[in-house]
Amino acid sequence: MKVIELKETVTASNDRDAEALREELNLRGVLLVNLMSGPGAGKTTLLSRTIRDLSDLKIAVLEADLDATVDAETIEALGARAIQAHTDGMCHMDAGMTRAGLEALGTEQTDLVFLENVGNLICPAEFDTGAQLRVMILSIPEGDDKPLKYPLMFRESDALILSKLDALPYFDFDLDKCIQRAKRLNPKIQVFPLSAKTGEGMAAWEAWLRENLIRKTV
Amino acid sequence: MKVIELKETVTASNDRDAEALREELNLRGVLLVNLMSGPGAGKTTLLSRTIRDLSDLKIAVLEADLDATVDAETIEALGARAIQAHTDGMCHMDAGMTRAGLEALGTEQTDLVFLENVGNLICPAEFDTGAQLRVMILSIPEGDDKPLKYPLMFRESDALILSKLDALPYFDFDLDKCIQRAKRLNPKIQVFPLSAKTGEGMAAWEAWLRENLIRKTV
Repeated sequence: MKVIELKETVTASNDRDAEALREELNLRGVLLVNLMSGPGAGKTTLLSRTIRDLSDLKIAVLEADLDATVDAETIEALGARAIQAHTDGMCHMDAGMTRAGLEALGTEQTDLVFLENVGNLICPAEFDTGAQLRVMILSIPEGDDKPLKYPLMFRESDALILSKLDALPYFDFDLDKCIQRAKRLNPKIQVFPLSAKTGEGMAAWEAWLRENLIRKTV
Repeated sequence: MKVIELKETVTASNDRDAEALREELNLRGVLLVNLMSGPGAGKTTLLSRTIRDLSDLKIAVLEADLDATVDAETIEALGARAIQAHTDGMCHMDAGMTRAGLEALGTEQTDLVFLENVGNLICPAEFDTGAQLRVMILSIPEGDDKPLKYPLMFRESDALILSKLDALPYFDFDLDKCIQRAKRLNPKIQVFPLSAKTGEGMAAWEAWLRENLIRKTV
């Protein structure tokens, strides 16, 4: 289990660093997906299922956490490459931290890298990591009012995964209202209601990932 | 609906400011409870039920959010005094922000003030707000591994509420294991498994609040 300790890089140049990293990833044919959510929205469970389903792709995972290595261990147990990044108390990943993480992870012969960002709906939305796609997960138990409270995260995301869909019968969550609220903030956002437990809705999410893969030019 | 826009105060002096605020609150006989959790753990639902159950007490609520006023509106609809504080993008409340919020709210003839901190398991743990009690909420759907991932929040809290207990049958959550993990980080932490929906476990939490009320000296 590889663990890397990261320090925040200079944020003034973050947008430029992120743009440069994105261009390099495009050239290398690597799709980096920045996965953001609050704690316990099911990022690791979603990743586990996605990795199993897309077994023809070469997938690696950069896990960012304040502490612990449980998520990276779960991913490694599936046979995927994973590295655990510790963020030195920072509640987000920036482009410099992501670059350092990717270098430690290694991205040769990799199609798809998931950056599992720190569990938090606030800070991660403010920092461009260099990922080509930003995906946020909101789990059904968290409530359909979250777009009202964390608007930036919804505005900045390319896709919204509504996870733990199997729990819908037990919670007072209005799916249509939530999607409407998200689309009011971000009309282009792709929405994938799904359950990584039952598999419902996984196919649409996985097809969207495939569509966005970067063609290898070298 | 009162809304206040707050700016971060100088953090170097935060511990001193927090201590001074706590002493003043003690003198005024006001118990301030700093309520922290991730997004959607059920802070507002818990508060709504607690306010209804403790109707003999004078309770006020300081809601902190990046944006929106939904929580304060919910609380006001119950007849309790509430103010919505906007944190200017900050992911936590500090002592200076809390003081400004309390002044705008008014604490005369108040027994108990809940500070509903920004939904986040990271930053709020790092800042003493001046509250006499720190309470964190972890909801069953978030998972029993959270003490491993957000150790500071568990270490810094006087009580841990395990909320949405009614959802236990639908999730793979080991109650004993979670409590064991929390107590390993913080042997003195009080644990209250409860459901604000069914009422189960509410009495123990409310009795604990009553025990901690500050006797009015003036």
